[in-house]
Amino acid sequence: MTVYLVGAGPGGVDTLTMRGFRLLERAEVVVHDRLVAQDVLALIPSGAERIDVGKHKGMAASQGLINALLVSLAKRHDCVVRLKGGDPFVFGRGGEELIVLREAGVPVEIVPGVTSAIAAPAVAGIPVTHRGIACGAVIVTGHAGLDPEIDFAELCRRGMTLVILMGVEQRETIARHLISGGLAAHTPLAVIERACTPGQHVVRAKLEGLASLDVTSPAVIVIGAVAALGGATLGALADNQFV
Amino acid sequence: MTVYLVGAGPGGVDTLTMRGFRLLERAEVVVHDRLVAQDVLALIPSGAERIDVGKHKGMAASQGLINALLVSLAKRHDCVVRLKGGDPFVFGRGGEELIVLREAGVPVEIVPGVTSAIAAPAVAGIPVTHRGIACGAVIVTGHAGLDPEIDFAELCRRGMTLVILMGVEQRETIARHLISGGLAAHTPLAVIERACTPGQHVVRAKLEGLASLDVTSPAVIVIGAVAALGGATLGALADNQFV
Repeated sequence: MTVYLVGAGPGGVDTLTMRGFRLLERAEVVVHDRLVAQDVLALIPSGAERIDVGKHKGMAASQGLINALLVSLAKRHDCVVRLKGGDPFVFGRGGEELIVLREAGVPVEIVPGVTSAIAAPAVAGIPVTHRGIACGAVIVTGHAGLDPEIDFAELCRRGMTLVILMGVEQRETIARHLISGGLAAHTPLAVIERACTPGQHVVRAKLEGLASLDVTSPAVIVIGAVAALGGATLGALADNQFV
Repeated sequence: MTVYLVGAGPGGVDTLTMRGFRLLERAEVVVHDRLVAQDVLALIPSGAERIDVGKHKGMAASQGLINALLVSLAKRHDCVVRLKGGDPFVFGRGGEELIVLREAGVPVEIVPGVTSAIAAPAVAGIPVTHRGIACGAVIVTGHAGLDPEIDFAELCRRGMTLVILMGVEQRETIARHLISGGLAAHTPLAVIERACTPGQHVVRAKLEGLASLDVTSPAVIVIGAVAALGGATLGALADNQFV
Protein backbone atom coordinates (compact mmCIF):
# COMPACT_ATOMS: atom_id res chain seq x y z
CA MET A 1 0.00 0.00 0.00
CA THR A 2 3.04 2.30 0.12
CA VAL A 3 4.91 3.64 -2.86
CA TYR A 4 8.57 4.44 -2.19
CA LEU A 5 9.99 7.10 -4.49
CA VAL A 6 13.62 6.02 -4.46
CA GLY A 7 16.63 7.71 -5.98
CA ALA A 8 19.07 5.07 -7.20
CA GLY A 9 21.96 7.49 -7.57
CA PRO A 10 23.83 8.04 -10.82
CA GLY A 11 25.92 4.87 -10.77
CA GLY A 12 25.68 1.31 -9.63
CA VAL A 13 25.00 -0.14 -6.20
CA ASP A 14 27.87 1.96 -4.81
CA THR A 15 25.84 5.14 -5.23
CA LEU A 16 22.59 3.66 -3.89
CA THR A 17 21.63 4.60 -0.34
CA MET A 18 21.22 2.03 2.41
CA ARG A 19 17.50 2.87 2.63
CA GLY A 20 17.14 2.27 -1.10
CA PHE A 21 19.05 -1.01 -0.81
CA ARG A 22 16.85 -2.29 2.00
CA LEU A 23 13.65 -1.31 0.21
CA LEU A 24 14.71 -3.08 -2.97
CA GLU A 25 15.36 -6.23 -0.95
CA ARG A 26 11.73 -6.34 0.15
CA ALA A 27 10.06 -4.84 -2.90
CA GLU A 28 7.11 -6.69 -4.37
CA VAL A 29 7.20 -4.65 -7.54
CA VAL A 30 9.76 -2.20 -8.89
CA VAL A 31 8.92 0.41 -11.52
CA HIS A 32 12.18 1.75 -12.92
CA ASP A 33 13.66 4.10 -15.46
CA ARG A 34 16.17 3.44 -18.19
CA LEU A 35 19.09 5.09 -16.37
CA VAL A 36 19.09 2.73 -13.37
CA ALA A 37 22.23 0.56 -13.37
CA GLN A 38 22.07 -3.18 -13.98
CA ASP A 39 23.68 -4.11 -10.65
CA VAL A 40 20.99 -2.11 -8.84
CA LEU A 41 18.26 -3.90 -10.78
CA ALA A 42 19.96 -7.19 -9.86
CA LEU A 43 19.06 -6.49 -6.21
CA ILE A 44 15.36 -6.94 -6.95
CA PRO A 45 14.12 -10.23 -5.45
CA SER A 46 13.50 -12.94 -8.05
CA GLY A 47 9.87 -13.21 -7.02
CA ALA A 48 9.24 -9.49 -7.47
CA GLU A 49 7.71 -7.93 -10.54
CA ARG A 50 9.92 -5.56 -12.49
CA ILE A 51 8.47 -2.96 -14.82
CA ASP A 52 10.71 -0.92 -17.11
CA VAL A 53 9.08 2.40 -17.97
CA GLY A 54 12.31 3.82 -19.36
CA LYS A 55 11.82 6.41 -21.99
CA HIS A 56 13.49 4.87 -25.01
CA LYS A 57 13.28 6.76 -28.27
CA GLY A 58 9.87 6.19 -29.80
CA MET A 59 8.83 3.91 -26.94
CA ALA A 60 8.19 6.28 -24.06
CA ALA A 61 5.70 5.35 -21.42
CA SER A 62 3.91 8.64 -20.88
CA GLN A 63 4.10 10.22 -17.45
CA GLY A 64 0.33 9.94 -17.14
CA LEU A 65 0.56 6.22 -17.77
CA ILE A 66 3.32 5.83 -15.15
CA ASN A 67 1.26 7.77 -12.62
CA ALA A 68 -1.78 5.57 -13.23
CA LEU A 69 0.37 2.44 -13.03
CA LEU A 70 1.76 3.45 -9.64
CA VAL A 71 -1.69 4.13 -8.23
CA SER A 72 -2.91 0.79 -9.53
CA LEU A 73 0.07 -1.16 -8.17
CA ALA A 74 -0.31 0.47 -4.76
CA LYS A 75 -3.77 -1.07 -4.47
CA ARG A 76 -2.40 -4.57 -4.98
CA HIS A 77 0.98 -4.48 -3.19
CA ASP A 78 2.34 -3.42 0.18
CA CYS A 79 5.76 -2.35 -1.08
CA VAL A 80 5.97 -0.65 -4.47
CA VAL A 81 9.39 0.85 -5.28
CA ARG A 82 9.49 3.59 -7.90
CA LEU A 83 13.18 3.63 -8.77
CA LYS A 84 14.73 6.57 -10.59
CA GLY A 85 18.29 7.29 -11.64
CA GLY A 86 19.94 10.00 -9.53
CA ASP A 87 17.49 11.79 -7.26
CA PRO A 88 13.72 11.63 -7.89
CA PHE A 89 13.28 15.37 -7.44
CA VAL A 90 16.06 16.76 -9.63
CA PHE A 91 14.48 16.77 -13.09
CA GLY A 92 13.09 13.35 -12.20
CA ARG A 93 9.38 14.22 -12.27
CA GLY A 94 9.06 12.66 -8.84
CA GLY A 95 7.00 15.66 -7.80
CA GLU A 96 4.33 14.83 -10.36
CA GLU A 97 4.14 11.25 -9.17
CA LEU A 98 3.98 12.34 -5.55
CA ILE A 99 1.03 14.65 -6.25
CA VAL A 100 -0.94 12.03 -8.17
CA LEU A 101 -0.31 9.37 -5.53
CA ARG A 102 -1.35 11.64 -2.69
CA GLU A 103 -4.49 12.69 -4.53
CA ALA A 104 -5.32 9.00 -4.88
CA GLY A 105 -4.80 8.49 -1.15
CA VAL A 106 -1.70 6.34 -1.59
CA PRO A 107 0.93 6.61 1.17
CA VAL A 108 4.29 7.70 -0.25
CA GLU A 109 7.75 7.72 1.26
CA ILE A 110 10.47 9.73 -0.39
CA VAL A 111 13.96 8.28 -0.39
CA PRO A 112 16.41 10.87 -1.71
CA GLY A 113 19.33 9.73 -3.83
CA VAL A 114 22.73 10.99 -4.83
CA THR A 115 22.16 13.46 -7.67
CA SER A 116 24.43 13.48 -10.71
CA ALA A 117 24.29 17.28 -10.55
CA ILE A 118 26.66 17.16 -7.58
CA ALA A 119 28.20 13.70 -7.92
CA ALA A 120 29.32 13.94 -11.53
CA PRO A 121 31.46 17.02 -10.92
CA ALA A 122 32.63 15.49 -7.62
CA VAL A 123 34.01 12.30 -9.12
CA ALA A 124 35.87 14.46 -11.63
CA GLY A 125 37.48 16.22 -8.66
CA ILE A 126 35.33 19.31 -9.09
CA PRO A 127 33.61 20.71 -6.00
CA VAL A 128 30.56 22.74 -7.05
CA THR A 129 31.34 25.09 -4.19
CA HIS A 130 34.85 26.07 -3.14
CA ARG A 131 35.91 28.82 -0.78
CA GLY A 132 37.11 31.87 -2.70
CA ILE A 133 36.21 30.34 -6.06
CA ALA A 134 32.57 29.27 -6.13
CA CYS A 135 29.99 30.60 -3.69
CA GLY A 136 27.11 28.43 -4.85
CA ALA A 137 25.71 26.32 -7.64
CA VAL A 138 22.96 26.70 -10.20
CA ILE A 139 21.40 23.48 -11.47
CA VAL A 140 19.38 23.56 -14.67
CA THR A 141 18.41 21.34 -17.54
CA GLY A 142 19.84 22.14 -20.95
CA HIS A 143 17.61 19.94 -23.10
CA ALA A 144 16.02 23.03 -24.65
CA GLY A 145 19.02 25.32 -24.27
CA LEU A 146 19.19 27.88 -21.46
CA ASP A 147 16.30 30.15 -20.47
CA PRO A 148 17.04 33.51 -22.17
CA GLU A 149 15.26 35.32 -19.32
CA ILE A 150 17.94 34.31 -16.83
CA ASP A 151 21.40 35.88 -16.99
CA PHE A 152 23.44 32.70 -16.50
CA ALA A 153 26.59 34.38 -17.79
CA GLU A 154 26.38 36.96 -15.03
CA LEU A 155 25.69 34.30 -12.39
CA CYS A 156 28.78 32.43 -13.48
CA ARG A 157 30.88 35.60 -13.45
CA ARG A 158 29.68 36.23 -9.89
CA GLY A 159 31.05 32.90 -8.73
CA MET A 160 28.11 30.56 -9.13
CA THR A 161 29.00 27.19 -10.64
CA LEU A 162 26.70 26.33 -13.52
CA VAL A 163 25.66 22.67 -13.63
CA ILE A 164 23.71 21.68 -16.72
CA LEU A 165 22.00 18.31 -16.95
CA MET A 166 20.83 16.90 -20.28
CA GLY A 167 22.64 19.67 -22.13
CA VAL A 168 24.87 17.74 -24.49
CA GLU A 169 22.65 17.97 -27.53
CA GLN A 170 22.22 21.73 -27.08
CA ARG A 171 25.87 22.40 -26.22
CA GLU A 172 26.41 24.69 -29.17
CA THR A 173 23.37 26.80 -28.26
CA ILE A 174 24.41 26.84 -24.61
CA ALA A 175 27.95 28.01 -25.38
CA ARG A 176 26.66 30.73 -27.70
CA HIS A 177 24.15 31.88 -25.08
CA LEU A 178 26.80 32.21 -22.40
CA ILE A 179 29.47 33.85 -24.54
CA SER A 180 27.03 36.35 -26.03
CA GLY A 181 25.88 37.02 -22.45
CA GLY A 182 29.40 38.10 -21.58
CA LEU A 183 30.95 35.00 -20.04
CA ALA A 184 34.64 34.76 -20.97
CA ALA A 185 35.39 32.31 -23.78
CA HIS A 186 38.21 30.85 -21.68
CA THR A 187 35.93 29.99 -18.73
CA PRO A 188 36.81 26.42 -17.71
CA LEU A 189 34.30 23.64 -18.07
CA ALA A 190 34.10 19.90 -17.81
CA VAL A 191 31.73 17.39 -19.32
CA ILE A 192 31.30 14.21 -17.31
CA GLU A 193 29.82 11.40 -19.37
CA ARG A 194 28.15 8.43 -17.65
CA ALA A 195 29.28 9.61 -14.19
CA CYS A 196 29.89 6.95 -11.54
CA THR A 197 29.60 4.10 -14.04
CA PRO A 198 32.38 1.93 -15.53
CA GLY A 199 32.05 4.00 -18.71
CA GLN A 200 32.68 7.29 -16.92
CA HIS A 201 34.66 9.78 -18.97
CA VAL A 202 35.66 13.34 -18.15
CA VAL A 203 36.38 15.89 -20.88
CA ARG A 204 37.84 19.25 -19.92
CA ALA A 205 37.71 22.31 -22.12
CA LYS A 206 37.14 26.03 -22.27
CA LEU A 207 33.70 27.46 -22.93
CA GLU A 208 34.73 28.36 -26.49
CA GLY A 209 35.43 24.68 -27.14
CA LEU A 210 32.16 23.28 -25.82
CA ALA A 211 30.30 23.30 -29.12
CA SER A 212 32.84 21.07 -30.84
CA LEU A 213 33.39 18.53 -28.06
CA ASP A 214 32.84 14.89 -28.98
CA VAL A 215 30.56 13.94 -26.08
CA THR A 216 27.34 11.96 -25.76
CA SER A 217 24.41 11.66 -23.33
CA PRO A 218 23.98 11.07 -20.49
CA ALA A 219 26.42 13.74 -19.39
CA VAL A 220 26.70 16.62 -16.96
CA ILE A 221 28.24 19.93 -18.04
CA VAL A 222 29.95 22.00 -15.32
CA ILE A 223 30.95 25.56 -16.10
CA GLY A 224 32.92 27.89 -13.84
CA ALA A 225 36.29 28.39 -12.23
CA VAL A 226 36.00 25.18 -10.19
CA ALA A 227 35.97 23.17 -13.42
CA ALA A 228 39.71 23.81 -13.66
CA LEU A 229 40.25 21.89 -10.40
CA GLY A 230 40.92 18.20 -10.18
CA GLY A 231 42.15 17.70 -13.68
CA ALA A 232 45.90 17.37 -13.48
CA THR A 233 46.93 13.77 -13.19
CA LEU A 234 44.05 11.44 -13.82
CA GLY A 235 45.82 9.21 -16.32
CA ALA A 236 44.75 5.62 -16.31
CA LEU A 237 43.06 5.80 -12.91
CA ALA A 238 39.36 5.76 -12.43
CA ASP A 239 38.21 9.35 -12.71
CA ASN A 240 37.26 9.61 -9.06
CA GLN A 241 40.62 8.34 -7.88
CA PHE A 242 43.39 10.85 -7.67
CA VAL A 243 47.09 10.28 -7.18
CA MET B 1 47.65 5.06 1.76
CA THR B 2 44.31 6.19 0.34
CA VAL B 3 42.05 8.86 1.78
CA TYR B 4 38.38 8.42 0.97
CA LEU B 5 36.39 11.65 1.02
CA VAL B 6 33.00 10.25 1.92
CA GLY B 7 29.66 12.02 2.13
CA ALA B 8 27.61 10.50 4.93
CA GLY B 9 24.34 12.06 3.78
CA PRO B 10 22.21 14.32 5.95
CA GLY B 11 20.68 11.63 8.15
CA GLY B 12 21.55 8.30 9.64
CA VAL B 13 22.65 5.09 8.00
CA ASP B 14 19.58 5.22 5.75
CA THR B 15 21.06 8.15 3.83
CA LEU B 16 24.57 6.71 3.61
CA THR B 17 25.59 5.20 0.27
CA MET B 18 26.58 1.56 -0.12
CA ARG B 19 30.10 2.64 -1.05
CA GLY B 20 30.33 4.72 2.10
CA PHE B 21 28.99 1.83 4.17
CA ARG B 22 31.54 -0.62 2.80
CA LEU B 23 34.42 1.80 3.29
CA LEU B 24 33.46 2.43 6.91
CA GLU B 25 33.45 -1.33 7.52
CA ARG B 26 37.11 -1.54 6.55
CA ALA B 27 38.32 1.85 7.74
CA GLU B 28 41.44 1.94 9.89
CA VAL B 29 40.83 5.52 10.91
CA VAL B 30 37.84 7.81 10.45
CA VAL B 31 38.07 11.60 10.64
CA HIS B 32 34.56 12.97 10.98
CA ASP B 33 32.55 16.14 11.42
CA ARG B 34 30.02 17.04 14.04
CA LEU B 35 27.01 16.60 11.76
CA VAL B 36 27.58 12.89 11.09
CA ALA B 37 24.84 10.79 12.72
CA GLN B 38 25.56 8.47 15.64
CA ASP B 39 24.32 5.33 13.88
CA VAL B 40 26.75 6.03 11.05
CA LEU B 41 29.63 6.43 13.50
CA ALA B 42 28.53 3.15 15.09
CA LEU B 43 29.53 1.38 11.85
CA ILE B 44 33.20 2.14 12.47
CA PRO B 45 35.03 -1.06 13.45
CA SER B 46 35.91 -1.23 17.14
CA GLY B 47 39.60 -1.51 16.33
CA ALA B 48 39.61 1.62 14.19
CA GLU B 49 40.67 5.03 15.35
CA ARG B 50 37.97 7.70 15.36
CA ILE B 51 38.84 11.38 15.30
CA ASP B 52 36.18 14.04 15.80
CA VAL B 53 37.18 17.30 14.14
CA GLY B 54 33.69 18.72 14.44
CA LYS B 55 33.55 22.45 14.63
CA HIS B 56 31.89 23.07 17.97
CA LYS B 57 31.58 26.65 19.12
CA GLY B 58 34.92 27.83 20.40
CA MET B 59 36.51 24.45 19.76
CA ALA B 60 36.98 24.35 16.02
CA ALA B 61 39.77 22.29 14.56
CA SER B 62 41.09 24.62 11.87
CA GLN B 63 40.86 23.48 8.26
CA GLY B 64 44.65 23.67 8.00
CA LEU B 65 44.98 21.31 10.93
CA ILE B 66 42.49 18.88 9.41
CA ASN B 67 44.38 18.94 6.11
CA ALA B 68 47.69 18.21 7.85
CA LEU B 69 46.08 15.44 9.89
CA LEU B 70 44.76 13.71 6.78
CA VAL B 71 48.15 13.82 5.06
CA SER B 72 49.80 12.44 8.17
CA LEU B 73 47.26 9.64 8.63
CA ALA B 74 47.58 8.63 4.98
CA LYS B 75 51.26 7.85 5.57
CA ARG B 76 50.44 5.40 8.34
CA HIS B 77 47.20 3.75 7.16
CA ASP B 78 45.88 2.07 4.03
CA CYS B 79 42.29 3.16 4.48
CA VAL B 80 41.60 6.61 5.89
CA VAL B 81 37.96 7.69 5.71
CA ARG B 82 37.24 11.40 5.85
CA LEU B 83 33.55 11.44 6.71
CA LYS B 84 31.45 14.55 6.22
CA GLY B 85 27.75 15.19 6.72
CA GLY B 86 25.81 15.53 3.46
CA ASP B 87 28.08 15.72 0.41
CA PRO B 88 31.77 16.61 0.78
CA PHE B 89 31.65 19.12 -2.07
CA VAL B 90 28.55 21.15 -1.19
CA PHE B 91 29.89 23.70 1.29
CA GLY B 92 31.86 20.84 2.80
CA ARG B 93 35.37 22.12 2.06
CA GLY B 94 36.14 18.75 0.51
CA GLY B 95 37.77 20.58 -2.38
CA GLU B 96 40.35 22.11 -0.07
CA GLU B 97 41.19 18.73 1.40
CA LEU B 98 41.41 17.15 -2.05
CA ILE B 99 43.89 19.78 -3.23
CA VAL B 100 46.13 19.45 -0.18
CA LEU B 101 46.11 15.66 -0.34
CA ARG B 102 46.93 15.61 -4.04
CA GLU B 103 49.75 18.09 -3.55
CA ALA B 104 51.12 15.75 -0.90
CA GLY B 105 50.95 12.82 -3.30
CA VAL B 106 48.20 11.05 -1.37
CA PRO B 107 45.75 9.00 -3.46
CA VAL B 108 42.17 10.19 -2.90
CA GLU B 109 38.87 8.65 -3.84
CA ILE B 110 35.76 10.79 -3.76
CA VAL B 111 32.54 9.15 -2.60
CA PRO B 112 29.63 11.53 -3.18
CA GLY B 113 26.81 11.64 -0.66
CA VAL B 114 23.20 12.67 -0.54
CA THR B 115 23.19 16.45 -0.09
CA SER B 116 20.76 18.12 2.30
CA ALA B 117 20.30 20.82 -0.34
CA ILE B 118 18.17 18.38 -2.34
CA ALA B 119 17.19 15.83 0.31
CA ALA B 120 15.83 18.23 2.92
CA PRO B 121 13.26 19.73 0.55
CA ALA B 122 12.56 16.23 -0.83
CA VAL B 123 11.61 14.67 2.48
CA ALA B 124 9.28 17.61 3.04
CA GLY B 125 7.59 16.67 -0.24
CA ILE B 126 9.19 19.57 -2.10
CA PRO B 127 10.85 18.82 -5.42
CA VAL B 128 13.46 21.48 -6.18
CA THR B 129 12.49 21.19 -9.83
CA HIS B 130 8.95 20.64 -11.05
CA ARG B 131 7.59 20.92 -14.57
CA GLY B 132 5.81 24.23 -15.06
CA ILE B 133 6.73 25.50 -11.60
CA ALA B 134 10.50 25.34 -11.07
CA CYS B 135 12.96 25.11 -13.94
CA GLY B 136 16.08 24.74 -11.80
CA ALA B 137 17.64 25.28 -8.41
CA VAL B 138 20.12 27.71 -6.92
CA ILE B 139 22.09 26.42 -3.95
CA VAL B 140 23.87 28.94 -1.71
CA THR B 141 25.00 29.37 1.84
CA GLY B 142 23.26 31.99 3.93
CA HIS B 143 25.68 32.16 6.86
CA ALA B 144 26.65 35.71 5.87
CA GLY B 145 23.35 36.64 4.25
CA LEU B 146 22.94 36.64 0.48
CA ASP B 147 25.49 38.10 -1.95
CA PRO B 148 24.12 41.56 -2.86
CA GLU B 149 25.76 41.28 -6.30
CA ILE B 150 23.43 38.46 -7.33
CA ASP B 151 19.77 39.17 -8.02
CA PHE B 152 18.30 36.20 -6.16
CA ALA B 153 14.84 37.77 -6.11
CA GLU B 154 14.80 37.87 -9.90
CA LEU B 155 16.07 34.28 -10.14
CA CYS B 156 13.27 33.13 -7.90
CA ARG B 157 10.70 35.10 -9.90
CA ARG B 158 12.00 33.40 -13.05
CA GLY B 159 11.25 29.97 -11.62
CA MET B 160 14.49 29.00 -9.97
CA THR B 161 14.06 27.38 -6.55
CA LEU B 162 16.29 29.03 -3.97
CA VAL B 163 17.90 26.59 -1.53
CA ILE B 164 19.78 28.24 1.32
CA LEU B 165 22.00 26.19 3.62
CA MET B 166 23.16 27.56 6.96
CA GLY B 167 20.82 30.51 6.62
CA VAL B 168 18.79 30.30 9.80
CA GLU B 169 20.74 32.86 11.79
CA GLN B 170 20.58 35.37 8.94
CA ARG B 171 16.94 34.70 8.07
CA GLU B 172 15.85 38.25 8.78
CA THR B 173 18.56 39.68 6.51
CA ILE B 174 17.76 37.11 3.83
CA ALA B 175 14.05 37.92 3.86
CA ARG B 176 14.73 41.66 3.69
CA HIS B 177 17.21 41.18 0.82
CA LEU B 178 14.69 39.19 -1.23
CA ILE B 179 11.67 41.38 -0.55
CA SER B 180 13.58 44.59 -1.25
CA GLY B 181 14.82 42.88 -4.42
CA GLY B 182 11.24 42.53 -5.58
CA LEU B 183 10.31 39.00 -4.58
CA ALA B 184 6.66 38.84 -3.49
CA ALA B 185 6.14 38.80 0.28
CA HIS B 186 3.71 35.89 -0.15
CA THR B 187 6.27 33.68 -1.92
CA PRO B 188 6.04 30.24 -0.28
CA LEU B 189 8.95 28.86 1.68
CA ALA B 190 9.77 25.97 3.93
CA VAL B 191 12.41 25.52 6.59
CA ILE B 192 13.48 21.93 7.15
CA GLU B 193 15.26 21.49 10.47
CA ARG B 194 17.47 18.43 11.06
CA ALA B 195 16.40 16.84 7.77
CA CYS B 196 16.37 13.03 7.59
CA THR B 197 16.98 12.63 11.33
CA PRO B 198 14.50 11.61 14.05
CA GLY B 199 14.30 15.28 15.03
CA GLN B 200 13.25 16.40 11.57
CA HIS B 201 10.77 19.25 11.55
CA VAL B 202 9.26 21.15 8.65
CA VAL B 203 7.99 24.70 9.02
CA ARG B 204 6.06 26.30 6.18
CA ALA B 205 5.54 30.01 5.79
CA LYS B 206 5.50 32.94 3.40
CA LEU B 207 8.61 34.97 2.73
CA GLU B 208 7.25 37.82 4.87
CA GLY B 209 7.10 35.44 7.84
CA LEU B 210 10.64 34.08 7.56
CA ALA B 211 12.24 36.58 9.93
CA SER B 212 10.00 35.67 12.83
CA LEU B 213 10.05 31.87 12.46
CA ASP B 214 11.12 29.92 15.52
CA VAL B 215 13.70 27.66 13.85
CA THR B 216 17.21 26.50 14.72
CA SER B 217 20.28 25.17 12.94
CA PRO B 218 20.98 22.91 11.17
CA ALA B 219 18.22 23.75 8.74
CA VAL B 220 17.63 24.19 5.03
CA ILE B 221 15.52 27.07 3.74
CA VAL B 222 13.68 26.51 0.44
CA ILE B 223 12.07 29.48 -1.25
CA GLY B 224 9.89 29.40 -4.37
CA ALA B 225 6.59 28.14 -5.71
CA VAL B 226 7.53 24.48 -5.12
CA ALA B 227 7.68 25.16 -1.39
CA ALA B 228 3.86 25.19 -1.40
CA LEU B 229 3.83 21.54 -2.53
CA GLY B 230 3.79 18.58 -0.21
CA GLY B 231 2.42 20.35 2.80
CA ALA B 232 -1.20 19.38 3.10
CA THR B 233 -1.67 16.38 5.33
CA LEU B 234 1.50 15.57 7.18
CA GLY B 235 -0.05 15.30 10.63
CA ALA B 236 1.59 12.82 12.95
CA LEU B 237 3.47 11.00 10.20
CA ALA B 238 7.16 11.26 9.66
CA ASP B 239 7.73 14.23 7.41
CA ASN B 240 8.82 12.14 4.45
CA GLN B 241 5.79 9.88 4.60
CA PHE B 242 2.67 11.13 2.94
CA VAL B 243 -0.85 9.78 3.17
